[in-house]
Amino acid sequence: MSTHILVLHGPNLNLLGIREPEIYGTTTLEDINQLLQKKAAEWDLELRILQSNHEGVLVDFLHENRTWADGVLINPGALTHYGYSLHDAILAIQKPTVEVHLSNIFAREEWRKKSVLSPACKGIISGFGVGSYLLGLEALKQHLSSADL
Amino acid sequence: MSTHILVLHGPNLNLLGIREPEIYGTTTLEDINQLLQKKAAEWDLELRILQSNHEGVLVDFLHENRTWADGVLINPGALTHYGYSLHDAILAIQKPTVEVHLSNIFAREEWRKKSVLSPACKGIISGFGVGSYLLGLEALKQHLSSADL
Amino acid sequence: MSTHILVLHGPNLNLLGIREPEIYGTTTLEDINQLLQKKAAEWDLELRILQSNHEGVLVDFLHENRTWADGVLINPGALTHYGYSLHDAILAIQKPTVEVHLSNIFAREEWRKKSVLSPACKGIISGFGVGSYLLGLEALKQHLSSADL
Amino acid sequence: MSTHILVLHGPNLNLLGIREPEIYGTTTLEDINQLLQKKAAEWDLELRILQSNHEGVLVDFLHENRTWADGVLINPGALTHYGYSLHDAILAIQKPTVEVHLSNIFAREEWRKKSVLSPACKGIISGFGVGSYLLGLEALKQHLSSADL
Amino acid sequence: MSTHILVLHGPNLNLLGIREPEIYGTTTLEDINQLLQKKAAEWDLELRILQSNHEGVLVDFLHENRTWADGVLINPGALTHYGYSLHDAILAIQKPTVEVHLSNIFAREEWRKKSVLSPACKGIISGFGVGSYLLGLEALKQHLSSADL
Amino acid sequence: MSTHILVLHGPNLNLLGIREPEIYGTTTLEDINQLLQKKAAEWDLELRILQSNHEGVLVDFLHENRTWADGVLINPGALTHYGYSLHDAILAIQKPTVEVHLSNIFAREEWRKKSVLSPACKGIISGFGVGSYLLGLEALKQHLSSADL
Amino acid sequence: MSTHILVLHGPNLNLLGIREPEIYGTTTLEDINQLLQKKAAEWDLELRILQSNHEGVLVDFLHENRTWADGVLINPGALTHYGYSLHDAILAIQKPTVEVHLSNIFAREEWRKKSVLSPACKGIISGFGVGSYLLGLEALKQHLSSADL
Amino acid sequence: MSTHILVLHGPNLNLLGIREPEIYGTTTLEDINQLLQKKAAEWDLELRILQSNHEGVLVDFLHENRTWADGVLINPGALTHYGYSLHDAILAIQKPTVEVHLSNIFAREEWRKKSVLSPACKGIISGFGVGSYLLGLEALKQHLSSADL
Amino acid sequence: MSTHILVLHGPNLNLLGIREPEIYGTTTLEDINQLLQKKAAEWDLELRILQSNHEGVLVDFLHENRTWADGVLINPGALTHYGYSLHDAILAIQKPTVEVHLSNIFAREEWRKKSVLSPACKGIISGFGVGSYLLGLEALKQHLSSADL
Amino acid sequence: MSTHILVLHGPNLNLLGIREPEIYGTTTLEDINQLLQKKAAEWDLELRILQSNHEGVLVDFLHENRTWADGVLINPGALTHYGYSLHDAILAIQKPTVEVHLSNIFAREEWRKKSVLSPACKGIISGFGVGSYLLGLEALKQHLSSADL
Amino acid sequence: MSTHILVLHGPNLNLLGIREPEIYGTTTLEDINQLLQKKAAEWDLELRILQSNHEGVLVDFLHENRTWADGVLINPGALTHYGYSLHDAILAIQKPTVEVHLSNIFAREEWRKKSVLSPACKGIISGFGVGSYLLGLEALKQHLSSADL
Amino acid sequence: MSTHILVLHGPNLNLLGIREPEIYGTTTLEDINQLLQKKAAEWDLELRILQSNHEGVLVDFLHENRTWADGVLINPGALTHYGYSLHDAILAIQKPTVEVHLSNIFAREEWRKKSVLSPACKGIISGFGVGSYLLGLEALKQHLSSADL
Repeated sequence: MSTHILVLHGPNLNLLGIREPEIYGTTTLEDINQLLQKKAAEWDLELRILQSNHEGVLVDFLHENRTWADGVLINPGALTHYGYSLHDAILAIQKPTVEVHLSNIFAREEWRKKSVLSPACKGIISGFGVGSYLLGLEALKQHLSSADL
Repeated sequence: MSTHILVLHGPNLNLLGIREPEIYGTTTLEDINQLLQKKAAEWDLELRILQSNHEGVLVDFLHENRTWADGVLINPGALTHYGYSLHDAILAIQKPTVEVHLSNIFAREEWRKKSVLSPACKGIISGFGVGSYLLGLEALKQHLSSADL
Repeated sequence: MSTHILVLHGPNLNLLGIREPEIYGTTTLEDINQLLQKKAAEWDLELRILQSNHEGVLVDFLHENRTWADGVLINPGALTHYGYSLHDAILAIQKPTVEVHLSNIFAREEWRKKSVLSPACKGIISGFGVGSYLLGLEALKQHLSSADL
Repeated sequence: MSTHILVLHGPNLNLLGIREPEIYGTTTLEDINQLLQKKAAEWDLELRILQSNHEGVLVDFLHENRTWADGVLINPGALTHYGYSLHDAILAIQKPTVEVHLSNIFAREEWRKKSVLSPACKGIISGFGVGSYLLGLEALKQHLSSADL
Repeated sequence: MSTHILVLHGPNLNLLGIREPEIYGTTTLEDINQLLQKKAAEWDLELRILQSNHEGVLVDFLHENRTWADGVLINPGALTHYGYSLHDAILAIQKPTVEVHLSNIFAREEWRKKSVLSPACKGIISGFGVGSYLLGLEALKQHLSSADL
Repeated sequence: MSTHILVLHGPNLNLLGIREPEIYGTTTLEDINQLLQKKAAEWDLELRILQSNHEGVLVDFLHENRTWADGVLINPGALTHYGYSLHDAILAIQKPTVEVHLSNIFAREEWRKKSVLSPACKGIISGFGVGSYLLGLEALKQHLSSADL
Repeated sequence: MSTHILVLHGPNLNLLGIREPEIYGTTTLEDINQLLQKKAAEWDLELRILQSNHEGVLVDFLHENRTWADGVLINPGALTHYGYSLHDAILAIQKPTVEVHLSNIFAREEWRKKSVLSPACKGIISGFGVGSYLLGLEALKQHLSSADL
Repeated sequence: MSTHILVLHGPNLNLLGIREPEIYGTTTLEDINQLLQKKAAEWDLELRILQSNHEGVLVDFLHENRTWADGVLINPGALTHYGYSLHDAILAIQKPTVEVHLSNIFAREEWRKKSVLSPACKGIISGFGVGSYLLGLEALKQHLSSADL
Repeated sequence: MSTHILVLHGPNLNLLGIREPEIYGTTTLEDINQLLQKKAAEWDLELRILQSNHEGVLVDFLHENRTWADGVLINPGALTHYGYSLHDAILAIQKPTVEVHLSNIFAREEWRKKSVLSPACKGIISGFGVGSYLLGLEALKQHLSSADL
Repeated sequence: MSTHILVLHGPNLNLLGIREPEIYGTTTLEDINQLLQKKAAEWDLELRILQSNHEGVLVDFLHENRTWADGVLINPGALTHYGYSLHDAILAIQKPTVEVHLSNIFAREEWRKKSVLSPACKGIISGFGVGSYLLGLEALKQHLSSADL
Repeated sequence: MSTHILVLHGPNLNLLGIREPEIYGTTTLEDINQLLQKKAAEWDLELRILQSNHEGVLVDFLHENRTWADGVLINPGALTHYGYSLHDAILAIQKPTVEVHLSNIFAREEWRKKSVLSPACKGIISGFGVGSYLLGLEALKQHLSSADL
Repeated sequence: MSTHILVLHGPNLNLLGIREPEIYGTTTLEDINQLLQKKAAEWDLELRILQSNHEGVLVDFLHENRTWADGVLINPGALTHYGYSLHDAILAIQKPTVEVHLSNIFAREEWRKKSVLSPACKGIISGFGVGSYLLGLEALKQHLSSADL
């Protein structure tokens, strides 16, 4: 049976490729999802993907898929900095979660340097554009397939 | 005529009994609601209950029921720490509100020790598990039935 | 062709005229919208107006109307203080945005003195009641009609 | 055999009913003690009550009664904010302790919002006047009579 | 009888149009004063205008004209950030005061984001270049002509 | 009938004249009390004087003499910096209180610069050695004998 | 030969009796100066008095009178909180200086609680209205007439 | 003539061996005192020992024995963190004082890491259980017997 | 020609597999280097690897290999938190640098949550044990082989 | 044509040689000005020199001489720490400015360690007494005579 | 078999007896080492001693001797305040470590009051000059020879 | 006999002319050393020069040359911000030390604005590129040749 991964994209990521391309590049969210699906197929992972600008919708999605999911890949967007409900949802469903960011948040404005989600996550990958997602998916796959990563 | 109480459960409380039972116990939200309804019947209170993972839904619920309600019982979940819109909604509807928490938030992580809702509330009860809700309902009942608690 | 303006009212502003009239006055949101529409007619502006208690709905609205809109007028309510997703949405759609507040937020409680939206906005008008909206609309009109305000 | 409860009233609570009645009401400490005794009789609790303006006396009292007591109900007064010895005494005697406050300390001056005792307590009830004591006694009773509150 | 407005320009505003035009534009202070006078004539306002690089001179000017004036329009320049005497002068003369800034001070360096004058002012308008002055004059006019803005 | 004044000397003041004379001088507490009594006789004041190293004793003394006293003169010693119970006692007895210090606490170590008692006091006199007491008594006398100091 | 005292009144004190009488009372600066002159005559002191809204003028006055003066009495007004040049001037002229305030600055807004002048002063008297000046003059007289206050 | 040492045990140390043995071990205070007395006999020291839960009693004890004592050994318990009166008492009696702690306070909770007594003490020994006392006594003995430790 | 990568291991990483295995696992540094070399062979990368407990040696190594290297993979160990010279060396050699950590530093002690190196790095990967290194090498390879990651 | 330099001396520097000679030495301001003039003659510089205790006068002087001046040498005195108007004036006139201090401000009281002017200056020289001025003049001369210092 | 102790002296301790003798005394490091060796002989301890001004050398030394050593005695010098690599090395080798300081670091400048090593150490001894080393060696010996210190 | 000066260049300065030329210019360290040697010859100074990326090497160099040296010129590079051992070494050798920086560190990132070395130095020169070194050498020469700079 394949491994099940939830992929969550937070607020404003639907505008990817449009919004501030000098920071985030020209790849669209659809492009990213296709790249992720391609990798998923290759690695025998099954994905359920959601983008939402609503913290509550992201929380609901985690809850609803919590028995189906083996792990979570999340780019929380601006919720990185104040999404305490999302933080608690990750704790609540008790699945390994990898936090990814397109840009290196630790090299940007002061308020972007702190993630309130990190303490609930397995790890973080930040700064590699679309690559952050792919590396994150790989990290999750390896973590789930091996107790001895 | 019976007294009308709104009961609000914030984000992730729908997973109660599942999420981190070592902190929150094994009672489910349904159990709590039944206990509250039983007490309400005993004390001649009428309850309208809502759980939501969306701050906006909780705010809307307060607004929509503001003329019906005599008081509010709320466990804001993680919104405790950043739900300024909820804070303003409590101020706006001008009904006595009791804030409750299952765990003693003041004995946990640093960021959980501050409630942004408290300045808008009548009082707070924290640390008694399901008991926090029942004591909160009792506090509200007494406050509403007496000018001289 | 007329100029297109999005008007956003944040959480709790639907209760305007009811909520804490000693701070916010007795004018209702409907009154404000009519005043704005009247001015818009006078100045050949077209308005799309939304009030929501959900940050996500406000963000969605900005996204959906981003090609239609020439500018944005926003009273973010309590999201002023923690709405980082809204901040990023304003950046993302790249339209001049004017932030308005009914009361002078810089003369109130300490936590109300900081706007997380301001760094993404053209300017701010705070403290003039309904007048803040009208002045904000005027500021936006002038900014959009002239490179040399 | 009845359950044994220590009731401690901290500094200045002897002036209750006299001191700042607009904040604390007109009920005297004697009134509170009688209400507590009445409830105790009803619930088969035995109380030992002490008011003192001396932190040391409160600490001594906890020590001297530590084998007798099953639980502690304490309104620490101003010691809430700096009574570290009292905090350590509560830890030392290892009995469940409920912290109560007449006013909602989290809605008052900044320095009143932090309790140094809370990390050593089972829970806190704040803001219900005399009701805080009665609810606190009830919380303690329930906690002591049940592993599964 | 016309309404009387004091217009104060703080330190370095005499260099407007010369100083850092990439931030402040090329309009001179003389241009601004003429635009204000034109609007004043149109709205039946009488203006007394002063620019000074001396906090004391600005304070003296407020004192000397305090019985003549109905309101104050002030761009405090760098005194925004440390002009406590000016703050107290505004309180002392008890006339509605509108604080204006050419640039959006809340989108600039950290130390420019705090105005020590704001708590003494009716409201603030920041970020609209010369427009800030004109909108500020309009805000003042409306406030003075109506108890019910 | 003469005016009644409580004089409180806080911790370590009994060692005055011995302790760190380079800071506090060589006058003893007995000397100070005699100077105060002499002035009291001259001004028709009646004094009750207490020195204690116990915050609780000082609080008790304020309580016990609260109906007798018209005003309070207090040098709180180190309790200046953490005596919140004493602060509340001053509030509770509702008598005008003058806080005095031998040395200028605002010119010493950082932690000595903050008085937690000041917000409850009529005023403060600091830095004049024994003179602080005498000036404080005079300030109290004038305040009590005149509504229009 | 009589003792020479400089009396300095800082910004806005010329409006005394007009400005915020609920905080500062109805006595005018002229009244205060007459009271001080009367006391000076009584105690054989000679006074030179200056009020200014300009920090520079106050500094100049200290410099120009530094050989004439034996001591300084100063109510720095808002310069209390940022008048570092005035602080340095007091240090520079090396005369004992007494800082006075009409209101108790330590019981007001947070930013009013810190005096940057205090470290350069002999002592401080705050909270006794006009009495602060008279007590300050007395403190200065006693300090100057006696090495052993 | 033997050397005289005061030994002070602060709040809750009377419960040693009972209180939180996982942190403080099972040795009782009586055990410690006997070990200290044994060492004292060996080193020709005379001890006066006091435990109290009252800061005032500890201060009084220092005062009363200040002419008898050559040095002080103190474990201040929780007063470590707020005992400013005790700090001043150590300064006041001007005897070398060694501060000891059973646990390593610098490896515990954040608030336990700061000692307000340290600036008044010769040195500190923390983390060696009962050994902290014995090493402290040795340090004191060596310091007192030698100008050239 | 193959791509050249510098691999730096900071202080204490030579003890990997020995030091705190509950946090860092049992894999040794030699194991990691072999895994990296294997991947490098597979991806046609050439590695130069150095572990040092000396910040200066790490800086020297970056300098000496700066013309050879195309990119840098670094696990800075504790230098993460204070290695400003290393930060400047990364800036100075102007090669893309990927920062990796075995554990999720953002979920550990407060002082471990801040990396002073991050602002000079392309990105960060933290929390995947040995996997962090392999993912980091992959991120670097992709970044170097593509302008359009 | 010679190079034109403005030399500004801030508050209290007119007392140089008198004020706190243990910190600032015995050289007078007149001595410094003569040394600067001598160097200026030697290096073919023309100086305009001003000392003022008024920030506004210093700002006016910068403005009035801004077309004449090629560079500025300034010892801001206490304005170093709060002279934001002076900071803006330096920015406004856009001439290279060298900030000098007689003492090493970074080795003095905490509040003296921060210069609000530095971000607007070319560089700073602090700690060499009169030498700071001469070195500053030399630095300015070299900067102005060479694009490639 | 004797017990093995590593003795580490941090930066600048080689200058002991030369460097600031008013703080550190005239004893040289050689003197201290001889005193330690003498005590070691007496107590059947074997010492390996190292002084270095290089954090990396101290870390290497801990690593290289980690199987030989039973415990560590360290005076980290200035590394006390920023030696996080040293901190991690102490954790990594998992031997009881005693931190010693010649002066009482908690009674000195603010930045000297915090030790980043303490959380990794068994205990700390500070303020007894050479005695700190000897007491530290004794503490270590006792800790190693007894589970029940 | 000529005067002896130690010249220390901290981490990364060996890359000068290569590293970030837009901030630090194109002059190499060799160029600077030649300029310094030329000036030294002219002024009869003898120089010993060292660049190192190792704090320990810089400390050793100060120690080894402490009897030879009359003064020290140091550009600490990034050690400016955390080189406490270097700070203590400067204190320890007790020679006048001048701190220089190529760029104006007080006009750069927040963390670059604080020098931990400054409190141990005679003075600082920052912002004049190579000129900072030459001016620093001159300042040192003058300080050493004259008690009355």
